[in-house]
Amino acid sequence: MIIVIQCTDRVGLVGAIASTLAKQQLNIISMREYVDKIENMFFMRLEVEEIGDPPALEVSIKEILPPGAMIIINPIPQKKIVAMVTKEYHCLADILIRNYFNTLGASVQCVIGNHPDLQDICKRFDMPFFLVPHEGKSKEEFEQEITGIIMPYQPDYIVLAKFMRILSPNLVAKFPMRVINIHHSFLPAFIGANPYRQAFERGVKLIGATAHFVSNELDEGPIIAQQIIPANHSFTVTDMVKAGKEIETSVLAYALKMVFEDRVFVYKNKTVVFD
Amino acid sequence: MIIVIQCTDRVGLVGAIASTLAKQQLNIISMREYVDKIENMFFMRLEVEEIGDPPALEVSIKEILPPGAMIIINPIPQKKIVAMVTKEYHCLADILIRNYFNTLGASVQCVIGNHPDLQDICKRFDMPFFLVPHEGKSKEEFEQEITGIIMPYQPDYIVLAKFMRILSPNLVAKFPMRVINIHHSFLPAFIGANPYRQAFERGVKLIGATAHFVSNELDEGPIIAQQIIPANHSFTVTDMVKAGKEIETSVLAYALKMVFEDRVFVYKNKTVVFD
Amino acid sequence: MIIVIQCTDRVGLVGAIASTLAKQQLNIISMREYVDKIENMFFMRLEVEEIGDPPALEVSIKEILPPGAMIIINPIPQKKIVAMVTKEYHCLADILIRNYFNTLGASVQCVIGNHPDLQDICKRFDMPFFLVPHEGKSKEEFEQEITGIIMPYQPDYIVLAKFMRILSPNLVAKFPMRVINIHHSFLPAFIGANPYRQAFERGVKLIGATAHFVSNELDEGPIIAQQIIPANHSFTVTDMVKAGKEIETSVLAYALKMVFEDRVFVYKNKTVVFD
Amino acid sequence: MIIVIQCTDRVGLVGAIASTLAKQQLNIISMREYVDKIENMFFMRLEVEEIGDPPALEVSIKEILPPGAMIIINPIPQKKIVAMVTKEYHCLADILIRNYFNTLGASVQCVIGNHPDLQDICKRFDMPFFLVPHEGKSKEEFEQEITGIIMPYQPDYIVLAKFMRILSPNLVAKFPMRVINIHHSFLPAFIGANPYRQAFERGVKLIGATAHFVSNELDEGPIIAQQIIPANHSFTVTDMVKAGKEIETSVLAYALKMVFEDRVFVYKNKTVVFD
Repeated sequence: MIIVIQCTDRVGLVGAIASTLAKQQLNIISMREYVDKIENMFFMRLEVEEIGDPPALEVSIKEILPPGAMIIINPIPQKKIVAMVTKEYHCLADILIRNYFNTLGASVQCVIGNHPDLQDICKRFDMPFFLVPHEGKSKEEFEQEITGIIMPYQPDYIVLAKFMRILSPNLVAKFPMRVINIHHSFLPAFIGANPYRQAFERGVKLIGATAHFVSNELDEGPIIAQQIIPANHSFTVTDMVKAGKEIETSVLAYALKMVFEDRVFVYKNKTVVFD
Repeated sequence: MIIVIQCTDRVGLVGAIASTLAKQQLNIISMREYVDKIENMFFMRLEVEEIGDPPALEVSIKEILPPGAMIIINPIPQKKIVAMVTKEYHCLADILIRNYFNTLGASVQCVIGNHPDLQDICKRFDMPFFLVPHEGKSKEEFEQEITGIIMPYQPDYIVLAKFMRILSPNLVAKFPMRVINIHHSFLPAFIGANPYRQAFERGVKLIGATAHFVSNELDEGPIIAQQIIPANHSFTVTDMVKAGKEIETSVLAYALKMVFEDRVFVYKNKTVVFD
Repeated sequence: MIIVIQCTDRVGLVGAIASTLAKQQLNIISMREYVDKIENMFFMRLEVEEIGDPPALEVSIKEILPPGAMIIINPIPQKKIVAMVTKEYHCLADILIRNYFNTLGASVQCVIGNHPDLQDICKRFDMPFFLVPHEGKSKEEFEQEITGIIMPYQPDYIVLAKFMRILSPNLVAKFPMRVINIHHSFLPAFIGANPYRQAFERGVKLIGATAHFVSNELDEGPIIAQQIIPANHSFTVTDMVKAGKEIETSVLAYALKMVFEDRVFVYKNKTVVFD
Repeated sequence: MIIVIQCTDRVGLVGAIASTLAKQQLNIISMREYVDKIENMFFMRLEVEEIGDPPALEVSIKEILPPGAMIIINPIPQKKIVAMVTKEYHCLADILIRNYFNTLGASVQCVIGNHPDLQDICKRFDMPFFLVPHEGKSKEEFEQEITGIIMPYQPDYIVLAKFMRILSPNLVAKFPMRVINIHHSFLPAFIGANPYRQAFERGVKLIGATAHFVSNELDEGPIIAQQIIPANHSFTVTDMVKAGKEIETSVLAYALKMVFEDRVFVYKNKTVVFD
């Protein structure tokens, strides 16, 4: 049984929670907690050996937490996700493979692409693929169409696996802190388009990739994970793109794992990640 | 106030400890705990905001812990250490610099060398240096001399900062899990002498360094930290040694920081490191 | 046009080769060379802008090289490979994906498995899969069957993508320095079976993976690439295996890229890698 | 003997240079070359076994190079440097230690500080320290004083080892591409003041450091080297600063090594580094 708690902090919170578990003979296998002293926020993730009686437990823990506390007992173990893509295959293929071998920690419901390039790979995995071209449509129409596809699946998360269109605040607002993007740079360097071109011009010696939640501001949402890979003078823009793809795949896979295992908490514009 | 606890595990331990703190109005700033389910061992490190009444607290916590529990409240904040060296300067110099600027988290009492090479750098930092050549002495005599120097300082830890003689089980036994060594390889690869020569012959593509506690078996003590640095075909043995020195310095500094901040627990032949 | 040269060294070799190219108005885009002074061996990889007249060029360069020199002009650009697997999917899936999207730099001819687990994923990519169980067969019979499947494909390389049987010297000898293996440890630590169990027992803080050519001695062939991923006290053997899989995939992909781009030279028990 | 060449590219350059060396019976130990096809620029670094006759060699090589070529034979092996500091010790101490043990590859002439904090550590190494407070002076007066101290030493490079004042274009122009700075972030992220505060606010998961040449624009000069170190949610600004110091020290040491060994070429706003 997994328990995640996020609330304002007060003295004795850990003891009160842990005692409540002990009274019900529940054995803590692993506990991670963090207090942000500046914001006075408390974060906790517990793994308990036994299954127990989740609704009863939730009631008894909620009693000892400050008002407004967020507590989730047994978060959905197999999250449902929708992936959105454009043309690049590397992140999607990694997700499809892990999904197929049941190691993703989530279940991909469908893939939406604004180009047909990745239709065939989806078909090979019996994965529904919806082609939604953006040409000749207003952003509103385009996103309405997307929303129409997404909604019936009731996904827990939307994963932008190299989806190269910027979502409107309107669409993002429908899935607050539930849209995950992979950005092809070490944010906040090279915000926006063509980060590899920018990195090339600047002569960087490291290439970064950032997995983050999408908020309203472009590339400004809470960061989940970041990785880098070395570059050198001999790298063309194309080489940087290639090298970048390797870490984009890897950092997105890691971020998804953290999110799907309920190890990520969001507050303000930051994340707490109990890795 | 820092509290470290190591004992056999039982249900409700975290709650009991945390409640005891809460009753005394002590606010937990940070808590790290780990249970080794195979060995049924419990490890905890707490940072508490207030100073409290340590002896009283120790009594009340001890009451709730299983018999044989180890609990230390307010471990010595400024550990005393003795460094032992041979000829290579890199690890010692790093320690002396941090010691001089009060960022080591420990206080170097003296340096013992079996060669005079590092006498001058010690003098420049007003650091007592004892030259104890090993030539013409039995191991017993050599170590008796060393012990005679160490003992009056009552050091908490002995740091082998590139000390190239193997200590006898007899000497090590006087400081159980309190002698820290930096080994110039990615243990357990290349145990023993000339690891860089071995690494060169094997054509490795990474060079490692390992900081570990010294037990009786050569290079077999509990590992505290490991790091690597890339190598390639163009590396001579000398290049490997040079590259290795950079990570030897860095991994030893990191391991010492962890130990001096009471973040390292030892059991069986392993460590728990709350980094 | 790519040119690779390996021969004994002598004064003026670089100049002679470069002049030969210049005389034929061939423009060097990139040149990497390395001389092993101990072994007196010369290694060079050239990329030339023009296509030129390869056979004529080979003759003129060979004239200036010492006897016994190896020179390959325009190595097969799209190597043919056969992959061998057991049950674990991660390395094979990565290879199949890159093969499907034409980014592997090689063409997978077929997959041979001693278990049926990966048959379906191959089928999804229209990749021939041959099931060759080892049970109830002598090693000789088993390998004869394998050889019978491999030979008609005339592969340039055989990739052991988590193939968990040890090949006999007899089979390896048929493909000298053309069998590539991914070993799930930081060689030469943890040679042989169950390296993660060994790593767990030893309490390591880093997990490694090594891609290497297979020679007759178990896990002793020339190393192409190595990578590591951090571990800590909380890792079970299963966690180590999971973490290890991520770098196994990544280090094998990198090693294959190097080999397929003709960037790897083998001599003695080492490799020169012009990355 | 080391030879570095930078010029516009043309067909046959490598052959012509290598042949010239061969004619004089000079044996190339190692050669690195790079051609920037976009800029049509050629870069080469050669190590030759013999001492030869440098002035004669320079003449004969210059004959075959395009007009305007830069060729340096036997660059000053022991560069002279001046270090400038404010209060933080970590970079300076590392430089002083390497200087003292003759492993810096350069000779520190003196240290200039705008605060007295690092006077004592300099004194311990018999290193001249000039205190030049900036208070109550115009930038012009301040820099005139500094220039007056630097000039008599005729340094090859000025190393800003955590010097927290911005130099005027006027002063920088006196040492074009010879002033090396360590910037406490992963440029171009967090340009300017308080990068760690900025990084903290942004919730980054990696902390970077960048060693670069100083040009007129703030933090915009050619990058020599970059490194990162992981961060997580528990990092305060202070923790980020501490972690950052470790890589600032390390990346500056690496960049200086590259520069002092004549492995760094500058052109446009980039560097070529033959590491």
